[in-house]
Amino acid sequence: VNTLLAIDWGTTNRRTWRVEDGAVVAAERDAMGVTAVQDFAGEVAAIRARLGNLPVLMAGMVGSTLGWRDAGYLPTPAGLDELAAGLVRLDARTAIVPGVSTDPADVMRGEEVQFMGALALGLAPPDALMIQPGTHSKWATLRGGRLTGFATAMTGELFALLRTHGILARQLGGAVTPGPAFLEGVAEGRRRDLSASLFTIRASRLLDRDRARDSASYASGLLIGCEIAARLESAPDGDIHVLADPGLGGLYLCALDAHGRRAHLVDSQTAFVAGITEIARRWS
Amino acid sequence: VNTLLAIDWGTTNRRTWRVEDGAVVAAERDAMGVTAVQDFAGEVAAIRARLGNLPVLMAGMVGSTLGWRDAGYLPTPAGLDELAAGLVRLDARTAIVPGVSTDPADVMRGEEVQFMGALALGLAPPDALMIQPGTHSKWATLRGGRLTGFATAMTGELFALLRTHGILARQLGGAVTPGPAFLEGVAEGRRRDLSASLFTIRASRLLDRDRARDSASYASGLLIGCEIAARLESAPDGDIHVLADPGLGGLYLCALDAHGRRAHLVDSQTAFVAGITEIARRWS
Repeated sequence: VNTLLAIDWGTTNRRTWRVEDGAVVAAERDAMGVTAVQDFAGEVAAIRARLGNLPVLMAGMVGSTLGWRDAGYLPTPAGLDELAAGLVRLDARTAIVPGVSTDPADVMRGEEVQFMGALALGLAPPDALMIQPGTHSKWATLRGGRLTGFATAMTGELFALLRTHGILARQLGGAVTPGPAFLEGVAEGRRRDLSASLFTIRASRLLDRDRARDSASYASGLLIGCEIAARLESAPDGDIHVLADPGLGGLYLCALDAHGRRAHLVDSQTAFVAGITEIARRWS
Repeated sequence: VNTLLAIDWGTTNRRTWRVEDGAVVAAERDAMGVTAVQDFAGEVAAIRARLGNLPVLMAGMVGSTLGWRDAGYLPTPAGLDELAAGLVRLDARTAIVPGVSTDPADVMRGEEVQFMGALALGLAPPDALMIQPGTHSKWATLRGGRLTGFATAMTGELFALLRTHGILARQLGGAVTPGPAFLEGVAEGRRRDLSASLFTIRASRLLDRDRARDSASYASGLLIGCEIAARLESAPDGDIHVLADPGLGGLYLCALDAHGRRAHLVDSQTAFVAGITEIARRWS
C-alpha cells in the first residue's frame, strides 16, 4: 500500500494525513482523541468521506483497551517487518499498528512508528539511542534498525502534577525556557535526589532567596536532568536523537548538551508519517 | 518556667498539653490548625480557660507567615539555648519557638523541638542522625546536641499527589504495609531512578504482570527507598533515630533495615513535649 490515510490517534488528540507515494498531500488535526470517541467505525468513515476512500492505517492509543481494538504489544526486538506482520486488521483495508513491550516491564504505543520513521528518513542510524520526550518520555535503543529495548520516565506527568497540585504549584506557573534557571536545575538533577531537590524550591521562597529565580524553568530542568542522568548511566557515549516539537525538543537538547552529549532534533510528526508509510508498504 | 501549656500548632492539626514539672497532666488534640483559625489570641484565651491560666509556649506553623506571628528562622547550628534565646514573645507569658534554616536552602518549623526532645529524653545521643518522616521528611544531623544541618525530602507529598491524581492513582489506593511489595520498592529505590521506576507500575498493569502485586506498598517503598538511598550517601554509617508514630515509623525502620542500617523509633509526640519543656526551662 503506497497511498493511504495515516492516523496518529492518541488519548486527547488525533492527526490524520493523506499520503500518496510517501508524500503528504492533505493533513488534519483535531481534539478527537480516543477518550472523545464512541463510534470509531463512524469516525473513520467520516475521515474517508473528507480525505478519500483509501486504506486506513492507525497507531497510538486507538490500539489500546481505551480505543477501537486492543492491538496488543509485540515483544522486543521489533522493527518494521515485525510491526507490519503484527498489524491488527479490522477489515481488508483498515488496520492498527500494535504496540511494543519489553523487559523489565515497559510498553509503548505509537512511539514505535516514530522511531522507525526517523530511521527510514535517514535522520538516525540503525544503531541509535532515541528519545521521545513528553508526559511519559520514551528512551529507546535501536540495533540493526530494530527496537531492542526501552524505558519510560514519567517526567512530564510529574511536572504537571507539581504544577497543578501541592505546595509548589503557585511557584511553577510560569513559562519554561532553556535559560540559566533551567540549566541550574539540570545540574542539580545530576545528583538524582529528586524529592529533596524539589523542596529547595519551597525553602528558597520561604528564605526569600528566589526573587531572581525562574522556578518553573528550574523545576523543569531538575526533572529532565534527573531523567537524563539516570538514563545515560547505561548509555555513556554516542549521539542522541530527540523526536519532538521544537519547544520540548529544545529543552532536551539543552539539557543533553549540559551533559556533554551531542543531540539531534527530529520532527516527531514527520517521523510518524515516514514510519507509518514504511509499515504500509509492507501491508498486503 | 516549669509549669506551662505547650502547643504543637500545625497547618491542619493542633495538640495541647498541660505540663507540670516535666509531666503531662492534661492533653487535647483537635483540627484547629492554623489554616482554621483567625483569632489566635482568642484561641489561646480559650485554651487557658480550659486547661489553666499558665504560660503558653507554641511551636510549628503558628510561627509561620500563615500563623499568628512570623517567628523567623534561626541559622544552624542551633540547640536548646539558641531556640530559647530566639523565642518570639507575644506578651510576658506567651511565646513562639522560632524555626531553623540551613544551607543549602532548607527550613524546618516544629521539628526542631522534637529533635531536641529526643536528646533531652536520652533516646538519641548528642551526635546523631535523626529523621522526622512525613509529608516533608526532615533528615537532621546533630553534633554536640545542636542541629548542624538538615535536608527535606517531599516524599510524602509526592506519594499523596500520585495517589490522588494522574495515571497511577487508581492503582495506589490500597493500604501500605511493610511486606514483600514494600521491600521490592525499597530495593528498586536504590537505583534512584524515580520517574522511570514509577512507570513500571503502570506498565506491569498493562502487561497483566501485577496481579499479585500490592502496588500501593510498592510505590511507597520506592519513594521511601529513593529518599533513603540519596540521604545515606552522605551518612554511610551509624545508627538512625526515627521520630514518628508507629505506622509511618515502622515503614522507615523496615526500609532502613533493608539498607543494613540500625534504626530506633522515638515517639514524636513524647519528643515534642520533652523538647518544649526544656526550652521553657530556659524561658525567663
